[in-house]
Amino acid sequence: MSTTSWHPVLPFSGDRELALNTIITTIDLIGTFAFAISGATVGVRNRLDIFGVLVLSFAAATAGGITRDLMIGATPPVALANWHYLAVSCLAGIITFYRYADIERLRNPVRLFDAAGLALFAVIGTLKALDHGLGPVGAVLLGMLSGIGGGIVRDVLVARTPVVFQSDLYAIAAMLGAIVVVIGVALELPAVLVMATSAAVCFGLRYMAIRYDWHLPVAPPS
Amino acid sequence: MSTTSWHPVLPFSGDRELALNTIITTIDLIGTFAFAISGATVGVRNRLDIFGVLVLSFAAATAGGITRDLMIGATPPVALANWHYLAVSCLAGIITFYRYADIERLRNPVRLFDAAGLALFAVIGTLKALDHGLGPVGAVLLGMLSGIGGGIVRDVLVARTPVVFQSDLYAIAAMLGAIVVVIGVALELPAVLVMATSAAVCFGLRYMAIRYDWHLPVAPPS
Amino acid sequence: MSTTSWHPVLPFSGDRELALNTIITTIDLIGTFAFAISGATVGVRNRLDIFGVLVLSFAAATAGGITRDLMIGATPPVALANWHYLAVSCLAGIITFYRYADIERLRNPVRLFDAAGLALFAVIGTLKALDHGLGPVGAVLLGMLSGIGGGIVRDVLVARTPVVFQSDLYAIAAMLGAIVVVIGVALELPAVLVMATSAAVCFGLRYMAIRYDWHLPVAPPS
Repeated sequence: MSTTSWHPVLPFSGDRELALNTIITTIDLIGTFAFAISGATVGVRNRLDIFGVLVLSFAAATAGGITRDLMIGATPPVALANWHYLAVSCLAGIITFYRYADIERLRNPVRLFDAAGLALFAVIGTLKALDHGLGPVGAVLLGMLSGIGGGIVRDVLVARTPVVFQSDLYAIAAMLGAIVVVIGVALELPAVLVMATSAAVCFGLRYMAIRYDWHLPVAPPS
Repeated sequence: MSTTSWHPVLPFSGDRELALNTIITTIDLIGTFAFAISGATVGVRNRLDIFGVLVLSFAAATAGGITRDLMIGATPPVALANWHYLAVSCLAGIITFYRYADIERLRNPVRLFDAAGLALFAVIGTLKALDHGLGPVGAVLLGMLSGIGGGIVRDVLVARTPVVFQSDLYAIAAMLGAIVVVIGVALELPAVLVMATSAAVCFGLRYMAIRYDWHLPVAPPS
Repeated sequence: MSTTSWHPVLPFSGDRELALNTIITTIDLIGTFAFAISGATVGVRNRLDIFGVLVLSFAAATAGGITRDLMIGATPPVALANWHYLAVSCLAGIITFYRYADIERLRNPVRLFDAAGLALFAVIGTLKALDHGLGPVGAVLLGMLSGIGGGIVRDVLVARTPVVFQSDLYAIAAMLGAIVVVIGVALELPAVLVMATSAAVCFGLRYMAIRYDWHLPVAPPS
């Protein structure tokens, strides 16, 4: 059934679809896992109990996609219809809860997985929005929201201003990835090429921002 | 009309339906009232004006059910389509606003009503999700969210970390109640038996947690 | 297409519709602009970067309408389907970011535009809810939420209790405007008259509250 399928309907089909779906599934799982770790880490730092940590893991991993699905009327959201998201989120949450010191030590690899998840969520979200008839601006907004929504909800739930508003070109990277998708689809370029380029742009910009500590300007104190 | 019906469509019918619906309606009203009091109490403590207190009453009483309805595509949400929810919420809010000292003194009975509301909201939410075609995992998640969503929104609106993440097996009780419903429906047990058992499990666990101050583990400081 | 139309379907038509729509469009743009400035101002004060400021501008200007559209099942929300909202929000955000001192000096005119936006959002939201089959109570709730939802989301995103719960008859003004619409439609009065009266009531009450510093009561400390 379409409501429980792992992926949005992609704008292509044929021989390569299976191989491509396997790749996307793998990256999507890794992205969900990485986002869930970011949620669990925030939960542990805020002294939540194990259950609160799992809720924050699931929220960080799925809130972006759930919001996207609500906005396009695709109910129930994939993250509720397919149990894989919950299983992966809980696995990440449990590991983080009982091995917090190890997770802290692996911070840099986790940030790379997180960047990979951001890139893939933005690409998939944009494609799914286009597929449901949104125009280019709406599709870019929803693609970006798919990428950053989880981090926003995670931070709101512990009553702090979302870090994606303050740091490291995070949301900009998601937006640029979404724009590449919209342009590529408009030009009817091959789907694999569009997705790979878009993900590379998003991941690359995020990687550079982490590596060289790039930031956007803040308004001068008045 | 289905959009303004007081209850979700329940997976049973026949002679006993009317009596059962009357019981559910009564408990649902009590639960809405108790949840609204929890919202109003938080509002008064945070020095909101009378209107803010009423908004928080309504949000605490209905946000879980509204979220559930949005997720399954049942728009408009019952809490907006049926004016009883607003009336009961405002009544609870006004009483709390003008009789705050009395409400504080009745804290223990209020917590029991709150536990009853949690149990019923979780049971109804799970049944409604199953009724709209969600799988067992999705139905448990939505049943739990129906129970705890109001408390989460209430706390986010006053910028504090939701207490349901931190206390007294609150969310766990809702989850166990939802799991009992899913198992009972899968085994095709009688609906009344399933609902009563599920509500008893949720209410009982919550009661024991309050009575004996049970908590879930928190991660050790690292 | 209805999903990308600038307005909800209004309960009237004929010769004057075009002129009326032009007026509504103009006020709607002004209201969106004013709400976006309120979001951008909060963003600059909280030291967000330029991107965070733009997100807060867009959220403050559109969250009320997006919530309304999700509640009535009108997906995708108009604010995503129509790019004008994003364009106007970003314009307001950029001006506020680079000309913050000027915006501060214009605080009083900005508050008047904000009151105009509140009035129009409440009127349009109520009409749209009625048009989608909600009853009078649900329509008033959604009309009010259309007006105040943006300010609530704006404040939650910077982790503070929404000021609309605490100040100056803001939400009450939106509610009264919505009630006037519901009564006027029930009495089948001319649409232009209903809209003008409703907007005047909302704007007028808000103006008086600002002018004379009216407040609602807060519960006495216990």
